[in-house]
Amino acid sequence: MSVLMQFAMFPTDKGASASPYVSRVIAMIRDSGLPYQLSAMGTIIETETLEEAQSVVSKAYSLLQNDCSRVYCTVTFDIREGSTGRMQQKINSIEEKIGKVNH
Amino acid sequence: MSVLMQFAMFPTDKGASASPYVSRVIAMIRDSGLPYQLSAMGTIIETETLEEAQSVVSKAYSLLQNDCSRVYCTVTFDIREGSTGRMQQKINSIEEKIGKVNH
Amino acid sequence: MSVLMQFAMFPTDKGASASPYVSRVIAMIRDSGLPYQLSAMGTIIETETLEEAQSVVSKAYSLLQNDCSRVYCTVTFDIREGSTGRMQQKINSIEEKIGKVNH
Amino acid sequence: MSVLMQFAMFPTDKGASASPYVSRVIAMIRDSGLPYQLSAMGTIIETETLEEAQSVVSKAYSLLQNDCSRVYCTVTFDIREGSTGRMQQKINSIEEKIGKVNH
Repeated sequence: MSVLMQFAMFPTDKGASASPYVSRVIAMIRDSGLPYQLSAMGTIIETETLEEAQSVVSKAYSLLQNDCSRVYCTVTFDIREGSTGRMQQKINSIEEKIGKVNH
Repeated sequence: MSVLMQFAMFPTDKGASASPYVSRVIAMIRDSGLPYQLSAMGTIIETETLEEAQSVVSKAYSLLQNDCSRVYCTVTFDIREGSTGRMQQKINSIEEKIGKVNH
Repeated sequence: MSVLMQFAMFPTDKGASASPYVSRVIAMIRDSGLPYQLSAMGTIIETETLEEAQSVVSKAYSLLQNDCSRVYCTVTFDIREGSTGRMQQKINSIEEKIGKVNH
Repeated sequence: MSVLMQFAMFPTDKGASASPYVSRVIAMIRDSGLPYQLSAMGTIIETETLEEAQSVVSKAYSLLQNDCSRVYCTVTFDIREGSTGRMQQKINSIEEKIGKVNH
């Protein structure tokens, strides 16, 4: 099974700049060893189970809860039978049809 | 702590009508005993921990995985220190400011 | 055509309580005459075109931009051929299958 | 003003593989000349106004509506005063704090 998860988590009680808080989360994901990609609007990771993906969200929240009184988080899952490697395959599938794109 | 979670989960390999699949998920939520509200675009539940909310998403997926080869799911969390009861309190807070609204 | 749109818009530079700002947006939607429903996590409206739904998001932002330096907004569209009235029909379709639910 | 918009749009009446439809949308965005980035879970574009971003969503739907009877679309906006260029700046801001990340 392949679970693609995109998520963004940030405090809403800290003013306009959330990057000090978001940085903690990204560092945890990078150190997790999971395949991931950061974008300007969130982070994508790929796991083999839904629970493994959800545990990343739990760990992310545990890094914020001590000094953030309110946290907002959006998550999107694309879950599919079959093998992993879809973070790149989905882009390849587009490029096979229309040629090179920015990614 | 109060965790408000809105989520929508549906198969994308079953054609335009997803309600037979969505119905399984809603029945499970109703039977869970958690406070919940169904809307035309998803379901809101309130829990005391993030893990409790995530376990609802896991159970929902377990109801679809046997006969759905691809599932899409969007989740939004609003996590706040303090006591639960926010499913209604957040609406009350708006109505105190601007009067009655449809909800 | 029926366009169901769920959206939530809030400033992220104003501390933990966004309800004074969200209230402006909800009052505008209520006064628009469009079918709508407020929940604890956002507002659903139904329109006949995508552009009509998007103009509600534009108006919402115009109510915040003068005193909010950063605004976050999530939007979900479910667009379907056929007639409107789906805000209630989608719930009815679930209840026909599993009986009464909270909505 | 800088409007970062992430969006994903796909038919839900076409079975598990949406890439023939998604490809049309990505080709349109690439040809628009706007700064954009494709990921496995959606596309990010940056514009100077909210309306300019919304017109991309409208054009995307116009490419699907003739042969898709049901379309689902998720959109997230991060709108901020100041100049554009945030698609890269937001990642730089994280890397200044924690070092290199995958992006």
